[in-house]
Amino acid sequence: MSQSVTGFEVHDIRFPTSERLDGSDAMNPDPDYSAAYVVLRTEGGAEGHGFCFTIGRGNDVTATAIEALRGYVLGRQAPRTAAQLAALHHDLTHDSQLRWLGPEKGVMHMAAGAVVNAAWDLAARQAGQPVWEFLSAMTPEEIVSLVDFRYLTDALTPDEALEILRAARPGRAERTAALRAEGYPAYTTSPGWIGYPDDKLVALARQAVADGFRQIKLKVGCDIDDDVRRMKLARAAVGPSVRIAVDANQRWDVPDALRWMAALAPYEPHWIEEPTSPDDVLGHAAIRSGQPVRVATGEHVANRVVFKQLLQAGAVDFVQIDAARVAGVNENVAILLLAAKYGVPVCPHAGGVGLCELVQHLSMFDYVAVSGTREGRVIEYVDHLHEHFEDPVRIVSGRYLAPTAPGFSARMLPRSIAAHSYPDGPVWQARRTAT
Amino acid sequence: MSQSVTGFEVHDIRFPTSERLDGSDAMNPDPDYSAAYVVLRTEGGAEGHGFCFTIGRGNDVTATAIEALRGYVLGRQAPRTAAQLAALHHDLTHDSQLRWLGPEKGVMHMAAGAVVNAAWDLAARQAGQPVWEFLSAMTPEEIVSLVDFRYLTDALTPDEALEILRAARPGRAERTAALRAEGYPAYTTSPGWIGYPDDKLVALARQAVADGFRQIKLKVGCDIDDDVRRMKLARAAVGPSVRIAVDANQRWDVPDALRWMAALAPYEPHWIEEPTSPDDVLGHAAIRSGQPVRVATGEHVANRVVFKQLLQAGAVDFVQIDAARVAGVNENVAILLLAAKYGVPVCPHAGGVGLCELVQHLSMFDYVAVSGTREGRVIEYVDHLHEHFEDPVRIVSGRYLAPTAPGFSARMLPRSIAAHSYPDGPVWQARRTAT
Repeated sequence: MSQSVTGFEVHDIRFPTSERLDGSDAMNPDPDYSAAYVVLRTEGGAEGHGFCFTIGRGNDVTATAIEALRGYVLGRQAPRTAAQLAALHHDLTHDSQLRWLGPEKGVMHMAAGAVVNAAWDLAARQAGQPVWEFLSAMTPEEIVSLVDFRYLTDALTPDEALEILRAARPGRAERTAALRAEGYPAYTTSPGWIGYPDDKLVALARQAVADGFRQIKLKVGCDIDDDVRRMKLARAAVGPSVRIAVDANQRWDVPDALRWMAALAPYEPHWIEEPTSPDDVLGHAAIRSGQPVRVATGEHVANRVVFKQLLQAGAVDFVQIDAARVAGVNENVAILLLAAKYGVPVCPHAGGVGLCELVQHLSMFDYVAVSGTREGRVIEYVDHLHEHFEDPVRIVSGRYLAPTAPGFSARMLPRSIAAHSYPDGPVWQARRTAT
Repeated sequence: MSQSVTGFEVHDIRFPTSERLDGSDAMNPDPDYSAAYVVLRTEGGAEGHGFCFTIGRGNDVTATAIEALRGYVLGRQAPRTAAQLAALHHDLTHDSQLRWLGPEKGVMHMAAGAVVNAAWDLAARQAGQPVWEFLSAMTPEEIVSLVDFRYLTDALTPDEALEILRAARPGRAERTAALRAEGYPAYTTSPGWIGYPDDKLVALARQAVADGFRQIKLKVGCDIDDDVRRMKLARAAVGPSVRIAVDANQRWDVPDALRWMAALAPYEPHWIEEPTSPDDVLGHAAIRSGQPVRVATGEHVANRVVFKQLLQAGAVDFVQIDAARVAGVNENVAILLLAAKYGVPVCPHAGGVGLCELVQHLSMFDYVAVSGTREGRVIEYVDHLHEHFEDPVRIVSGRYLAPTAPGFSARMLPRSIAAHSYPDGPVWQARRTAT
């Protein structure tokens, strides 16, 4: 049954989302949601798909970075076990020459994440399970073996991780059943893009509540008066009991964040997300202690070492993992374990293209096998581009339904890949012809 | 006199340095020193050269990232003034789509640095001055205008920066003259590569002292007993008054660093460099407070935001800027100002290929216009690959002589570029034929 990887295909896929203001925020006015996409093929015909999410220009740089990893995968035995998935993750992140380009951050690290996630897609399909179940079925020892503890042991040792996982072992079956029956709570960012006019914001906020969401999110950070007005409108639209998170997308320095949040605090934001640079652990700690609103970050946090410090410094109230920025499932398992150690809830970043599809598996694994709770946790949901996926997320009454199909849910439809290939797919050719 | 940039050439240049153990350390056993190299050409025939330094595989990824910046440079007026150099730096680091690939870290940020540095090479040549003098001749207001203060203002405001620069204005002429007469102190890493046998280490350490160096550096971090033996040998070879720095190249977790440095402390290391992850601000702070040896880091620190925190947290005794990892001269000016604000000496990282040539300009600028002192400061020196440069560093009696030729000293000889182009230059073709 041992098969080797015989194909490694890389695609530059881009969606012209900047033509509308969907996805607009204080730092990203015109994203073209994109994926540097990798397909692993085995001699037996099985496939694993993974990708880096980017917002347009530079997607080719990320694709080149994925290409640089080809030699670690082609000809290798297709990984099926925790040990094999750990070995692949290790090889991709410990090439000493490629490591120089980070280390463990930016383009090269995102590329490693794409390949690691593709390997998980492949392994889970071979096992006939969705990734969340495949991962949750591993023993605590297997799960610990997935993690690279380098630079973590001052905060979390392998033994402590094992203890966390063993403590969560009772009840796994009940929680798996609960997920299948009830899904996992979601919140929606769709009402609050910064480019939307007030009436659209209000209508979409009301619609979100009608659809069953108990939390929405507004983008803020360009103009304080606009933001106070929009926050007031949103609060009036959803009432006092629906949570409204706000998200500055890294727009502020520490003093700006303190000033802005003092102005927004009367409308009770649930959290302030990315108030400043994702690298600024001490800045987040200062913002958390200097104003009343809880602090969230993570979608741009480069790796487990920065997450470790955010937790050590008491800088965050919510850890926002991203499925496609760090080195894939393995590094996200490390981050989930760190968050569990510090007792901080994980509320993943999603949206873009395919991020919802991926990250739901990680939150469901967290619930079944790590933190053991959904209390205070929500997964971001954005209603973009799901139609391009073979196994798109299913949202019912403001909840993610548990995926049932084998794999990582992030396989794009062949026709979508072909149509949006950059620069020569028909979607882009048509735009060049039109201008 | 206004000319526009009409050429933007990118080269993948690699040197087969892994064939010897030069450059070997605890994390980088076999580097092939490489440069993703960019040449800007103007219609008047002037050129500006810059590069990312890498250690082999992935140099093509960095070259692709430089290519992604082409549109910001081609057709643009060749920058000559502080305002124009600030505008270019801003454009290269604030493209919202490319920023997603960092933000401000890794491959994409290094690529921005290469292009920014090429623009400084061009501007200084047009002014007929070496970069250190070109930069030192700017007014405090112009220098402040070069800096992107985003994420810095909780630690350093533009007004505080101006104050630092104004305080250093008296004596600029004397310090410039002193540099021309005496140069700037260097230390050498050449004796201490981890792959060298003991007798070579001892002979090279003695030679370094005979050559006038007052500081050498040993690579450590693979085996504690080996390191104690090598440190003892080196201390015996150079005597008590020559400083011996040690460098772990990120090999350790915090507990390892504490244990290792307790064992090495009796031989009085001058500093421990890169004891752990360059992202680990809190880890460096714990190492600094948990053992007696002073702490240095910076060559892999991704950007000014992380340097800011290392200073805020009291995590480092020495700031080791690198000329080609952050976004070029502009971001290094920010880091020099931060270090001056916190009173921490800057001792640059160099070596690799071309890093000595570049970074000497930044230390000399620091001395003339920012910190105003060479006290306790040294620039790293490694005797590799200088023969490939048009204006190589000149080391006399353990000191860098001040460059006198216009530009940034980092222009590679055309024959070296041609010979080492990867994969088709004759140096690499010959190796493929031989195997």
